[in-house]
Amino acid sequence: MTMAIVVQKYGGSSVGNPDKIKAIARRIVATREAGDDVVVVLSAMGDTTDDLIELAHEFTERPDERELDVLLSTGEIVSSTCLAIALRAMGQCAISLNGGQAGIQTDGCHSRAKIISVIPERVLRELENGNIVVVAGFQGIAEDMDVTTLGRGGSDTTAVALAISLGASICHIYTDVNGVYTADPRLITTARKLDEIDYDEMLELATYGARVLHSRAVEIGKCYDMPILVASSFSDARGTLIHGGIKMELRNKVRGIAHDMDVAKVTVRSVPDQPGIACAIFEPLADHGISVDTIVQNISTEGITDLTFTVSRNDLDRAVEIVGPICQSIGAKGHVSSLGLGKVSIVGTGMQNTPGYAARMFKALSDAGVNIELISTSEIRITCIIREEKVKEAVDALHRAFSLGEIDCDN
Amino acid sequence: MTMAIVVQKYGGSSVGNPDKIKAIARRIVATREAGDDVVVVLSAMGDTTDDLIELAHEFTERPDERELDVLLSTGEIVSSTCLAIALRAMGQCAISLNGGQAGIQTDGCHSRAKIISVIPERVLRELENGNIVVVAGFQGIAEDMDVTTLGRGGSDTTAVALAISLGASICHIYTDVNGVYTADPRLITTARKLDEIDYDEMLELATYGARVLHSRAVEIGKCYDMPILVASSFSDARGTLIHGGIKMELRNKVRGIAHDMDVAKVTVRSVPDQPGIACAIFEPLADHGISVDTIVQNISTEGITDLTFTVSRNDLDRAVEIVGPICQSIGAKGHVSSLGLGKVSIVGTGMQNTPGYAARMFKALSDAGVNIELISTSEIRITCIIREEKVKEAVDALHRAFSLGEIDCDN
Repeated sequence: MTMAIVVQKYGGSSVGNPDKIKAIARRIVATREAGDDVVVVLSAMGDTTDDLIELAHEFTERPDERELDVLLSTGEIVSSTCLAIALRAMGQCAISLNGGQAGIQTDGCHSRAKIISVIPERVLRELENGNIVVVAGFQGIAEDMDVTTLGRGGSDTTAVALAISLGASICHIYTDVNGVYTADPRLITTARKLDEIDYDEMLELATYGARVLHSRAVEIGKCYDMPILVASSFSDARGTLIHGGIKMELRNKVRGIAHDMDVAKVTVRSVPDQPGIACAIFEPLADHGISVDTIVQNISTEGITDLTFTVSRNDLDRAVEIVGPICQSIGAKGHVSSLGLGKVSIVGTGMQNTPGYAARMFKALSDAGVNIELISTSEIRITCIIREEKVKEAVDALHRAFSLGEIDCDN
Repeated sequence: MTMAIVVQKYGGSSVGNPDKIKAIARRIVATREAGDDVVVVLSAMGDTTDDLIELAHEFTERPDERELDVLLSTGEIVSSTCLAIALRAMGQCAISLNGGQAGIQTDGCHSRAKIISVIPERVLRELENGNIVVVAGFQGIAEDMDVTTLGRGGSDTTAVALAISLGASICHIYTDVNGVYTADPRLITTARKLDEIDYDEMLELATYGARVLHSRAVEIGKCYDMPILVASSFSDARGTLIHGGIKMELRNKVRGIAHDMDVAKVTVRSVPDQPGIACAIFEPLADHGISVDTIVQNISTEGITDLTFTVSRNDLDRAVEIVGPICQSIGAKGHVSSLGLGKVSIVGTGMQNTPGYAARMFKALSDAGVNIELISTSEIRITCIIREEKVKEAVDALHRAFSLGEIDCDN
């Protein structure tokens, strides 16, 4: 009988202190004793990453990104060695590997590196040696053994990428919530846990603010059809299985509400409406690794238009720095930016074939007195940019409007 | 004009907090601006290493050594990235490298790895790129990119090994004292700083307890004739130059007093006095990487003898574990061990050609009411093992007996 390989990822709150690490060590041993080979991917303990960022900021507002990556990578090395020490103290064979040793090879784009390939030989060898393999999440190596990090939430991506390259049967993502909910349960008390969800829906939820899982992890899970179970590391509740085999016709049309408080907006004013303008603005942003979210361009009046886009707040300063000189060169009148925005999205695969969802969303927001600043849609999602302070009310209104708190609701 | 390469090592108390790191960054920039290429080797910030050991002990009394090495290595990575961030924030070109990247290749003996070779290419390349190169001390890599540590004080060894392999002109060791003293100035207020000292004398002082510099660093410095300057990172005082060019005849005979409070003793009782017995005991200890210090074997009575040796206290448990089964197999009566010991040594190159130093040492200790438990000597050192609580009195008595507080004393 061949043993299956199971990859389990535990987030920062699951390894927040030595007692929690001991508790997850016991969970891992139980999985191991059930007969599977286990690869564990860990985040840094509790607030370690924030503490390290704060330390770097003692020296400058803008720490060098290469150095910051190396600094931050130590957080996951500490947690993974601690878990290996705990497992060995329980009589298990275990070994910790850093991202480079685990074969996570990335590009050289510090603070937001992309995985180029995973070379699984070392992990497989350690599994053959009978070890539980504990991998430091969030990190990889580029050329010259230079450490990179995958960006916030990157440990999820490490876990799913490893699961795929190892031919694992499933990737478990253990976190501080019981699974994926119809809305953030910290915001909406009637939010309901979903037993399963489609990759695309999860991707929209993750991208548009459901922090339970990193969107890049869902993306690669979808590409390679790797089932991902999101569950609590503190309970034995069932969790939410993200996979591709859900029967579409049987589901709610709207599956969940995502929200995000981390939105900043840049408007380039009075741009000449001619070919190449959008490219002139967005190519440099992409080159600097700034993820632009919603883009809206109004219809032009007398060959002049306004162009608005949103970025995460952390990226706003850099985005403005880049856009400033471009404004001059393309003959725009200038640019304005603002923080203090948020967004709410409704997500569901069936929506596109059933008219009226957008109208119902806008009416619910309007009834709740929420003004919509920008609108953006995909095939399975409708997103509104609103004032940050209205986000909670908006999520609440939408959750009720689409009856998401009810089991077997058919909105 | 070719620029010289200077290697500077800063200890844990010199990088204890962000302000101290900024202060040493300014010192380093001053060296750089004087025209030299600078390679910096750092220890972990303040008590980081102790804190990490404490963390590991949350899981077990005996953390796995491989895992502990990886855990501890993060301390030096944090301090070195912080310094690189600080230097870059000051407008300097700087890059941090971990031990592996800096080419520090070691054997696989975790927690006390020995440097096998230093491959200087990466450091040289970064210097050519105009960088100040900041290297995480104390660590290297063995096979499989597995991180090793060089043991306590290992950053000194990293610095001197790098200085040699880079062809540096000098290795600066910056610490929290002004140099090498005739005795520990924290213990003896009249202790005097030495302007220069010979490698061998420094080696004996370092090995026998003067914590200002790691003995392995002096050892390799001597082998390759690398001048080492020990000075304070907090002042511009002159420091002590360790080198090979000192005129022997002009010096004091006794140069300094070393002491050590970290001594444990094991006595194997009633050993048959026959060939191979010492080997049967000490070979397994060496195989387990336990450094045995003083060894004393009494003359035998009726073919039976006692054999006593000392180890550092941390190694005592393991030493006893190893010696236990050996006692049975060689037909010894048993073994006893004790903690609570210390040692004092007088060190000086001229001693051996001038009789009476040992006698004067024993008299001084006797006059101070200090009982001697074991005696060990080298060509330039006489060491007595005594009760730990008598160490301060003993050092004080010896410092006075050999007039070490007086400039140009000729004892």
